[in-house]
Amino acid sequence: MSFQAFAALAAKQQLVPYPYEPQPLRPQDVEIEISHCGICHSDLHLIDNDWATSVYPLVPGHEIVGTVAAAGAESALVPGQRVGVGWQRSSCGECEFCRAGEENLCPRQEAVCVGHMGGFARRIRLDGRFAFPIPASLDSAAAAPLLCAGATVFAPMRRWKVRAGMQVGVIGIGGLGSLAIGFLRALGCHTTAFTASPDKRDAALAMGADEVASSTNAKEIRALANRFDFLLSTVPARLDWITYLLTLKPNGVLCLVGSPPGVMQIVAGPFLTGQRILCGSDIGSPGIIRETLAFAAEHRIAAQVETAPLEEVNAAIQRVRDNQVRYRMVLTR
Amino acid sequence: MSFQAFAALAAKQQLVPYPYEPQPLRPQDVEIEISHCGICHSDLHLIDNDWATSVYPLVPGHEIVGTVAAAGAESALVPGQRVGVGWQRSSCGECEFCRAGEENLCPRQEAVCVGHMGGFARRIRLDGRFAFPIPASLDSAAAAPLLCAGATVFAPMRRWKVRAGMQVGVIGIGGLGSLAIGFLRALGCHTTAFTASPDKRDAALAMGADEVASSTNAKEIRALANRFDFLLSTVPARLDWITYLLTLKPNGVLCLVGSPPGVMQIVAGPFLTGQRILCGSDIGSPGIIRETLAFAAEHRIAAQVETAPLEEVNAAIQRVRDNQVRYRMVLTR
Repeated sequence: MSFQAFAALAAKQQLVPYPYEPQPLRPQDVEIEISHCGICHSDLHLIDNDWATSVYPLVPGHEIVGTVAAAGAESALVPGQRVGVGWQRSSCGECEFCRAGEENLCPRQEAVCVGHMGGFARRIRLDGRFAFPIPASLDSAAAAPLLCAGATVFAPMRRWKVRAGMQVGVIGIGGLGSLAIGFLRALGCHTTAFTASPDKRDAALAMGADEVASSTNAKEIRALANRFDFLLSTVPARLDWITYLLTLKPNGVLCLVGSPPGVMQIVAGPFLTGQRILCGSDIGSPGIIRETLAFAAEHRIAAQVETAPLEEVNAAIQRVRDNQVRYRMVLTR
Repeated sequence: MSFQAFAALAAKQQLVPYPYEPQPLRPQDVEIEISHCGICHSDLHLIDNDWATSVYPLVPGHEIVGTVAAAGAESALVPGQRVGVGWQRSSCGECEFCRAGEENLCPRQEAVCVGHMGGFARRIRLDGRFAFPIPASLDSAAAAPLLCAGATVFAPMRRWKVRAGMQVGVIGIGGLGSLAIGFLRALGCHTTAFTASPDKRDAALAMGADEVASSTNAKEIRALANRFDFLLSTVPARLDWITYLLTLKPNGVLCLVGSPPGVMQIVAGPFLTGQRILCGSDIGSPGIIRETLAFAAEHRIAAQVETAPLEEVNAAIQRVRDNQVRYRMVLTR
């Protein structure tokens, strides 16, 4: 009984149909019949081996929604439940981070599509602790991106106590940024969207941003000096971090969820005077993913998605590579 | 009735005797007869106009201990009280930071020796809200450095909840670093002292550090990867920040209280994977200064000081410039 999937056989290759024999279902495992899977930029990095961690054949996909087809004896899930899976597929359960509910920081964590077969497939098996029931009111296609992109932007909002009345900036209006604006609107923040794409300005306002600014025009950014309580950067781009740091109020936080390449240049001044903070956030714990799904259901936050059938995965990937998707591509059964 | 002081008349000059007429004593003010004043590296930066903020004639000195000689009608202090003064001499009292007890972040704050006459003098007048009673058990010379150096290192320990059992690193064993080791020992932390001076290694252990490492040998620093909950950098030096960030555990905090010159190079990885934090701290609020003094008194934390008479201020400054002081120079009456 092999699982039907699509895999890259080597770095930067097109995906090809790839049937594989799944590992036996362990007591803690579930088998999920996949109905939807988002395409995240991380999938492209994995296909291209940009992080030098890829294992081929590589089945990408870690924004999975589907139905439990089988559940091991120890799993709390039952066949027929609609569930979602994000970046992480297991953790040790014993370390200080697992015990603190921060399984995303577990040093022995495993990722869904690093050394395991991911969600660009008909089925997947993994530890049921990392499959989360999807609230009934959420549409499956719109929910899929919540599992990775959504939890990734919501986790630091919770960690840094982002709340009503705060001035918040979101750098980059893509899959992560568009969801971030939705969460911030629901939280009651005043949101400034930073984008390098003039054509996304109106879209950002329509999503709920209160203001829009250029993400690359230093003069426009400088005009926002001392403005923000919280600034979330979703972009994998080299930006003028010194100027961005100065848009923070005293005690303000610049949080990276996108990974700028190479060296970032900063100066000590904004950290010392005004006690500004630079940090990052790493996906979300199971607890945060559950909270993300519940919050999105309560506040009717849905990712704006395009869908494409799984068989057209290569064309769908190309649209993501070409930055043509508004704002998340989701593969469907 | 002029106040006797020592002033730099222009950048990088020796100090000269400088009598000046004080401002009238306002209702909120106190006049302090100064008995001790620490020499902080910030004083040298002010004398040299390194921050382009200096106003001449410039009377340095912002680690002041003395006796209240006169108190305005609205001051809570009374003549005869022993008090201390740190970097800050006033704040607006009305902004969100002042209302939150974070007067050190007030945008209209004033510094003791920027545009006002500081503590290398016989007397000083300033807002009594920024003069703090010194606990009886503290020696005046040893207490003076607590007002700036002590509060500067203790404030981030409180903000970031540094506590017993944590692994903490202190970079730089000078006036700030030596006090930091004292506070960390009292807090029950396991402390690693980083120093570039081989002759300070034994001294750091004697102060209470549990381990010592080179602050500049990359191999020695790399051996401490994933070690620290909290890392306090007290040095104004260019260091290998990327390697230091990787000595932090997940969720670990690198806090700057010394200001490295020029551009600091970092990479995004340690922030994203492991959610490490880079921040800084800016002196201490009045609340923190009171807490610093109380904590130091309770735990018998005293700065190791050398003293010199105020008249020998230029020779004392030279010893600080030459990095010969172990560990803080304090001028005496």
